[in-house]
Amino acid sequence: MSIQIGIFGYGNLGRGIESAIRQNPDMTLAAVFTRRDPATLTIGTEGVPVLHTSQVEAYADKIDVMILCGGSATDLPTQTPALARRFCVVDSFDTHARIPEHLAAVDAAAKEGGKTAMISVGWDPGMFSLNRLYGDAVLPDGKDYTFWGKGVSQGHSDAIRRIDGVLDAKQYTIPVESALEAVRSGVCPDLTTRQKHTRECFVVAAEGADKARIEREIKTMPNYFADYDTTVHFISAEELARDHGGIPHGGFVIRSGKTGKESEHTHVIEYSLRLDSNPEFTASVIVAYARAVARLYREGNVGCKTVFDIPPAYLSPKSRDELIASLL
Amino acid sequence: MSIQIGIFGYGNLGRGIESAIRQNPDMTLAAVFTRRDPATLTIGTEGVPVLHTSQVEAYADKIDVMILCGGSATDLPTQTPALARRFCVVDSFDTHARIPEHLAAVDAAAKEGGKTAMISVGWDPGMFSLNRLYGDAVLPDGKDYTFWGKGVSQGHSDAIRRIDGVLDAKQYTIPVESALEAVRSGVCPDLTTRQKHTRECFVVAAEGADKARIEREIKTMPNYFADYDTTVHFISAEELARDHGGIPHGGFVIRSGKTGKESEHTHVIEYSLRLDSNPEFTASVIVAYARAVARLYREGNVGCKTVFDIPPAYLSPKSRDELIASLL
Repeated sequence: MSIQIGIFGYGNLGRGIESAIRQNPDMTLAAVFTRRDPATLTIGTEGVPVLHTSQVEAYADKIDVMILCGGSATDLPTQTPALARRFCVVDSFDTHARIPEHLAAVDAAAKEGGKTAMISVGWDPGMFSLNRLYGDAVLPDGKDYTFWGKGVSQGHSDAIRRIDGVLDAKQYTIPVESALEAVRSGVCPDLTTRQKHTRECFVVAAEGADKARIEREIKTMPNYFADYDTTVHFISAEELARDHGGIPHGGFVIRSGKTGKESEHTHVIEYSLRLDSNPEFTASVIVAYARAVARLYREGNVGCKTVFDIPPAYLSPKSRDELIASLL
Repeated sequence: MSIQIGIFGYGNLGRGIESAIRQNPDMTLAAVFTRRDPATLTIGTEGVPVLHTSQVEAYADKIDVMILCGGSATDLPTQTPALARRFCVVDSFDTHARIPEHLAAVDAAAKEGGKTAMISVGWDPGMFSLNRLYGDAVLPDGKDYTFWGKGVSQGHSDAIRRIDGVLDAKQYTIPVESALEAVRSGVCPDLTTRQKHTRECFVVAAEGADKARIEREIKTMPNYFADYDTTVHFISAEELARDHGGIPHGGFVIRSGKTGKESEHTHVIEYSLRLDSNPEFTASVIVAYARAVARLYREGNVGCKTVFDIPPAYLSPKSRDELIASLL
């Protein structure tokens, strides 16, 4: 029986989920829910109903796992607990500092409804978190480092776009190569925010706008840019569309640690991602975990889970015997 | 209550386990079992009993997890099933092709004894297997590649030592950089054995030995060297001891795959290890999984497990809340 997937929110991530489902023969897209007028939305899969979010209750028996594709700032904190009462759900909540409270809210809702939920699925949080945990457990006398990029940060791009006189912008987060090399050498350096990443901004300014003022406002913006070495390039709208249309991302989780009688041996574990499309890769991770959620629910394992709770074999459509014979 | 660990076999791996236990405050080394005369063995931890393997039964109630440190060729196929009836066990059985039959034997024994067992723990099989599985599940339209090295292969070094006229030898397996780069580019190349790895041998020959014949015997040895580009260096015993005394190893698991409506986006996941000491890193992985085995046993989850079956959180001494707050 194919796993029936619902998509709740049809932006970049929702479209990525739709594509990922097509790569997984054990899954079917059952319905897409949108806050827009469903009549205005054309999706990529023929014959799949597109419905308004207000109609979601009627689908409670038709969907095995609902994947929430909204944003962490305002959508998911209310949507995930609300839906977890009636659906098995997966979200990609990525505000690290607020994960514990989100988990508690979703866990309570899922248990009330007897459903299985999973939050914070993707690559960070997600695959990067797994690698931080495995590294921490395997090399306890060590330290881990996470670097992001080179990639587009949506939040930082949005922050630039809000500046007066800016028509459009793309911001790239770039790991500092010398910092990466220091970490890879196993010396466990102490690194400041500025030493780990730089930020590069491509900005389309309105005609006649004061570019010096825009550049200053970007570089001094607290939290977003003030703690980084930031470069600002002014380009045309055509150049932005031509050269910066993608949503690439990636990064590195590196753990180094010591072993031996006198801690004389150093080991370096490095996990890296190079992604052409951040939302499509995030979607691919979510879809694999949706399979795990469906299985946990069948097993009666309710409440809210994280990637830390899921046996790796649950992500795969292959049988345990097949996995052991082919991948172990 | 500290987890009481037994070490069964005190070679390089056993000594690595002993060191790793000292890095994990929730574990205690309870006893070391050896096939040698226990009186001849001095271990690195004071006050820990060293016993002959024939006395192991008497320790059934004193040990939470027994870690088997023998070899995969002849020791583990009999030892692990035999001990799994009376102890929770972990081994590092690494003959990939024979894992299914070993699993079946250990599973039957563990279930008969109501114990929890785990086989094939380390880095390959082990951490590399996990990364093959995660990559396969997350990017189903893709391909994975495993490269080993640069590192010392014990089996290949032993094979050289068996050649007439060879006093000692060390063999390094080295990944071919151009093959690594091709895989990293995301093109999914087809690679032959010869294209993936080279082998470099450092050989101490007996005085007067026919070096040309030794070199020829190495390079034409079926399975071990014939399918590879192999380099042979003859060096002195002093040089071997000075420059090749360590047991470094490492390698790469790289998965690349496509996503998108027209498979237009490529993603590359790379996991790599650079290890100063192969046995000590293997031991570190085993000790983390021994913690998981102790917990599974407390939960009544008996039978033989693999790394694919274990929720990541079970490897850590930290609470789930702490993991979620600090590493997710």
